[in-house]
Amino acid sequence: MRTGIATVCLSGTLKEKMQACAIAGFDGIEIFEQDLVTSALSPEAVRTMASDLGLGLDLYQPFRDFDSVPEELLHENLRRAGAKFELMSRLGMDTILVCSNVATAEIDDDGLRAEQLGRLAQLAGEHGVKVAYEALAWGKYVNDYEHAHRLVEMVDHPNLGTCLDSFHILSRDWNTAPIEKFNAEKIFFVQVADAPKLSMDVLSWSRHYRVFPGEGQFELAKFMGHVVRAGYTGPVSLEVFNDVFRQSDVERTAVDAMRSLIWLEEQSAKWLDANWLDAHDAGAAAASPAAARGAAGSAKVTGRRRYPMELATLPKVAEPAGFNFAEVKADDTAGLEKLLGQLGFEFEGRHRTKDVQLWTMGHARVIINEQAPSHTEPAIAALGFDVDSPVIASARAQQLKAPVVPRKVQADEEVFQGIAAPDSTEIFLCQGSPDGTAAWTAEFGQAGEFGDGISAPVGAGAVIDHVNLAQPWQHFDEAVLFYTSALALEPAPFAEVPSPTGLVRSQVMQTSDRAVRLVLNLAPLLQHDGGHKSYQEHIAFAVDDLVGLARAARDRGLEFLQIPANYYEDLAARFSLEPGFLATLKELNLLYDRDASGEFLHFYTATVGSVFFEMVERRGGYDGYGAPNAPVRHAVQYDHARRIPN
Amino acid sequence: MRTGIATVCLSGTLKEKMQACAIAGFDGIEIFEQDLVTSALSPEAVRTMASDLGLGLDLYQPFRDFDSVPEELLHENLRRAGAKFELMSRLGMDTILVCSNVATAEIDDDGLRAEQLGRLAQLAGEHGVKVAYEALAWGKYVNDYEHAHRLVEMVDHPNLGTCLDSFHILSRDWNTAPIEKFNAEKIFFVQVADAPKLSMDVLSWSRHYRVFPGEGQFELAKFMGHVVRAGYTGPVSLEVFNDVFRQSDVERTAVDAMRSLIWLEEQSAKWLDANWLDAHDAGAAAASPAAARGAAGSAKVTGRRRYPMELATLPKVAEPAGFNFAEVKADDTAGLEKLLGQLGFEFEGRHRTKDVQLWTMGHARVIINEQAPSHTEPAIAALGFDVDSPVIASARAQQLKAPVVPRKVQADEEVFQGIAAPDSTEIFLCQGSPDGTAAWTAEFGQAGEFGDGISAPVGAGAVIDHVNLAQPWQHFDEAVLFYTSALALEPAPFAEVPSPTGLVRSQVMQTSDRAVRLVLNLAPLLQHDGGHKSYQEHIAFAVDDLVGLARAARDRGLEFLQIPANYYEDLAARFSLEPGFLATLKELNLLYDRDASGEFLHFYTATVGSVFFEMVERRGGYDGYGAPNAPVRHAVQYDHARRIPN
Repeated sequence: MRTGIATVCLSGTLKEKMQACAIAGFDGIEIFEQDLVTSALSPEAVRTMASDLGLGLDLYQPFRDFDSVPEELLHENLRRAGAKFELMSRLGMDTILVCSNVATAEIDDDGLRAEQLGRLAQLAGEHGVKVAYEALAWGKYVNDYEHAHRLVEMVDHPNLGTCLDSFHILSRDWNTAPIEKFNAEKIFFVQVADAPKLSMDVLSWSRHYRVFPGEGQFELAKFMGHVVRAGYTGPVSLEVFNDVFRQSDVERTAVDAMRSLIWLEEQSAKWLDANWLDAHDAGAAAASPAAARGAAGSAKVTGRRRYPMELATLPKVAEPAGFNFAEVKADDTAGLEKLLGQLGFEFEGRHRTKDVQLWTMGHARVIINEQAPSHTEPAIAALGFDVDSPVIASARAQQLKAPVVPRKVQADEEVFQGIAAPDSTEIFLCQGSPDGTAAWTAEFGQAGEFGDGISAPVGAGAVIDHVNLAQPWQHFDEAVLFYTSALALEPAPFAEVPSPTGLVRSQVMQTSDRAVRLVLNLAPLLQHDGGHKSYQEHIAFAVDDLVGLARAARDRGLEFLQIPANYYEDLAARFSLEPGFLATLKELNLLYDRDASGEFLHFYTATVGSVFFEMVERRGGYDGYGAPNAPVRHAVQYDHARRIPN
Repeated sequence: MRTGIATVCLSGTLKEKMQACAIAGFDGIEIFEQDLVTSALSPEAVRTMASDLGLGLDLYQPFRDFDSVPEELLHENLRRAGAKFELMSRLGMDTILVCSNVATAEIDDDGLRAEQLGRLAQLAGEHGVKVAYEALAWGKYVNDYEHAHRLVEMVDHPNLGTCLDSFHILSRDWNTAPIEKFNAEKIFFVQVADAPKLSMDVLSWSRHYRVFPGEGQFELAKFMGHVVRAGYTGPVSLEVFNDVFRQSDVERTAVDAMRSLIWLEEQSAKWLDANWLDAHDAGAAAASPAAARGAAGSAKVTGRRRYPMELATLPKVAEPAGFNFAEVKADDTAGLEKLLGQLGFEFEGRHRTKDVQLWTMGHARVIINEQAPSHTEPAIAALGFDVDSPVIASARAQQLKAPVVPRKVQADEEVFQGIAAPDSTEIFLCQGSPDGTAAWTAEFGQAGEFGDGISAPVGAGAVIDHVNLAQPWQHFDEAVLFYTSALALEPAPFAEVPSPTGLVRSQVMQTSDRAVRLVLNLAPLLQHDGGHKSYQEHIAFAVDDLVGLARAARDRGLEFLQIPANYYEDLAARFSLEPGFLATLKELNLLYDRDASGEFLHFYTATVGSVFFEMVERRGGYDGYGAPNAPVRHAVQYDHARRIPN
């Protein structure tokens, strides 16, 4: 698949954009006109630079408001087009995007439109360039890709084809299957963009909220499947207008963009494999379904390869089987040790060669890393995930352009495959085991048991339930794609939680069996400013008997997050709880939620640095995170932080 | 008018919110339930605190999903309501907001609804509280305020009335005139919120984009006029869900909120005055229009006072007649002096008692203030506006809670009335003069003419055309209301301009005769971060002969912002310009725009600190700012800043 990206997706100057695209490994780019107009580089210099960077200049865009106009204006539009065609030859470019008319269209007549597009194609031919005509979703008369294609067929000129843009097609919910019947020679260009499903006017949606494939909710693999089946072999190019990407680091965004195409390529191949039978039916005479199925059975493995476009594959991974460990890092680790000890974690000793401690409860493993630079507040530094094959998973992640994290190892120590998540959390791909143990724990020396040893029975079944990571606002969408593509987690619908300093956007990424639950939180902007503490992160552990564990922790002196009495009164109003149970919740600062499938009990510890811990008990099929309680947690933490400045 | 605000409008804890509301001068507040549930303050403590702060507790809200349910669920809902009614008596509150059911409504039957609301009213009566029933714009069966009111009339219980919320009414484009016919005793509460007109689902619009009155596009004065005519005398309370306000400084936001109500009160009174005749017609028998007009003629002045709700007025100001001066401030002023001199400004000397210089061109006056702390980069510090009466204008601004800026004066010096704009720019209200001169210039000593003196003829007709100020993102909406209410400027529809670091939101505030044009720019967030220079601001001067002035400035060595050659090629493609004229534009780095009413020529200087200057020439009725050229300016400035770090 030939990969491309429009310069409008990125921040910076044209030069910076081109360099970033080359570094990210794109085959070609679309030059967005404004980026050229505002550039100090001459067209000839752009051409040379692209050649030096190994970037094809695949599309010049956009040319607006051409068709469906009175003859006088058409004359003027042809003059404009001629000037751009001349510019294109200086750039060495052969294809220009012409959008269906929005602003100046006056005459709704396909015959006239075909005649006008024909004159444009004729002029393009004289300049040796091609016109890719695109139906904008908000085009005045032409806003449907099939309509645009019909016009192209009517004109039937070698210099006129269509551009298919997934946003303009999927935002209008057009059926994409008819693409398969298109004459591939008439598809001059394919642009892809994803988007969250928003209920707003399509122009605003398009100009501000597009995202890279895998970061939104469009069925892009299916769209691409139809394009591939049509026989298209040209560039698949990103055109993403996004308010955040426009502001973000150009090289980071270009890599994120490239990752999205690599992922889309794999997903498209998968869709084609899964839908091979349909394609066969469509190609062959559909008279004999049994024969078609027979053919499908034997051809399935190589079926995809019958299409002219080559689709590269990636090393395959299944979703992770669970958390292997969580690692917190600090200069002064005393506060963390105290909290874990009071919760009932057991200290398993220090690593034989590194300044790290291992603490466990059941199968929940927490590493306390003491190797932090001085004045480093406690923070979540790394997460380990159980995978079938760390090497294959790492290979996949690296092909998806995840940065590798080096981890020093001695002989006889387990080699961890590490990659950096967009928020810099280190992600380690670990060898899972059927019984939930981890071989590397043998590298830790034995230690005496912490405290009075009463903890083990209560926490014997403990696991890491979920981890809640704060995301920088520039990298939120990138993180969704990262965990989707590299770690096979699935995004759940996002939620918004009120806090005293603004709404917190909360995105759950999880496995289908919920063995891994990761919550990405986008904190309000002011929390990133100097005036406030940065957003807190936490690790939640699931146990079987939360009340018992809380009692034991209280007896060990644990500092619980103090839940206001008003909360329990509201709880009583919302749910008819048994008075003794309500009293227990209140006594132990436990929070409670319930839905049709089960119940959820949980409590939070005080915060150390930017980290706190949560203990949860899931009863029945409860699948959430106690979202109605999140505002309470935020408010109490905020109030606490303001009263005890540190 | 009794002023109120819902705690959900503000950031912080309940305590912080209440304190901020008291400081801002609100009469009462609505307690948003979540703010109480998450608070460590007991209901009794909240009651005492409100009393100590002189704040009424006017509404407890919201109570959701009550009506249109099966009997079993109704029973549960009445139990929930009973718990809240008990809580209200502990708070000493007498009114609760009940929203029309969204989530659990199953039975669409007004008879049943009335019966269920009747039982709720009965229960409320037993607890001595009142229920204000509100039609949410997205209520499942009840989403129209007239429907809610009909239900209230059907129940006809003293403890049941309606709550009218401007957002729920105006977002659905409901006609507001029928409010006048409502029985005022059945209107228990009025909530006001403004909003920009967005085309998106009404729930998202409501939860994220509401703004304070005067910051959006709803016809709130008319809405309030109908409410006043109905005879309502209760609280007028803000309920504004806004992602930015939730994050902003609580005291700043509370003052902004209060300003919006003071302004709305005045606008409502004006609307009532302007529409007195209609009211009279409605009240009197409409049989004799002539008689009604006669009565209107005599009663117009006092007409408003016939309504039970008292509406306070503000000192009246007309829109300013022009800019009186612009002031830039710097530690090292050499760069500014050089630029102004090269542009052809004349140095008029220093102030007799202050370290400030006066530079003029025609009626454009620029003060260079040298009294800046060291290492202060050149920046726009103050703007003077010509008004009829500085004292009246200042009184108005102060009643609108604009912070006063003290300005030291000596005897015999003009006293400037100064207020601080939301971005801290100092706004001075100056005595305008019919001939555009300013008396205070006499306080400046005479100085020799700068340069060769050829400038005066070219710039004789110069005025300040517009000033472009960067706004902090937390204070953008606040700034719109500030300039609307305190300075009588009108907001134009906002625009978005692409820059290499993101979209710049640009809001023009102007007078009807365009003597004052102020552009508020909201820069992309990253431009506020350490990594980039902060967003640049500028002052634009209009002259009659831009080409002549540019030539003279070039001869004096002015450093123009260098416009790329690509721009002129694009200009040639877009407009059929006479080749000689195009060559002149290119030669002098002039930018060009044209619309149906005229032409616009302009150029920019290099930037000094965060300030640059623009010179413009308006031909014909051109009323814009060369928006198509703004991306060029941004790109060149960005490129320049990156290449010459300072």
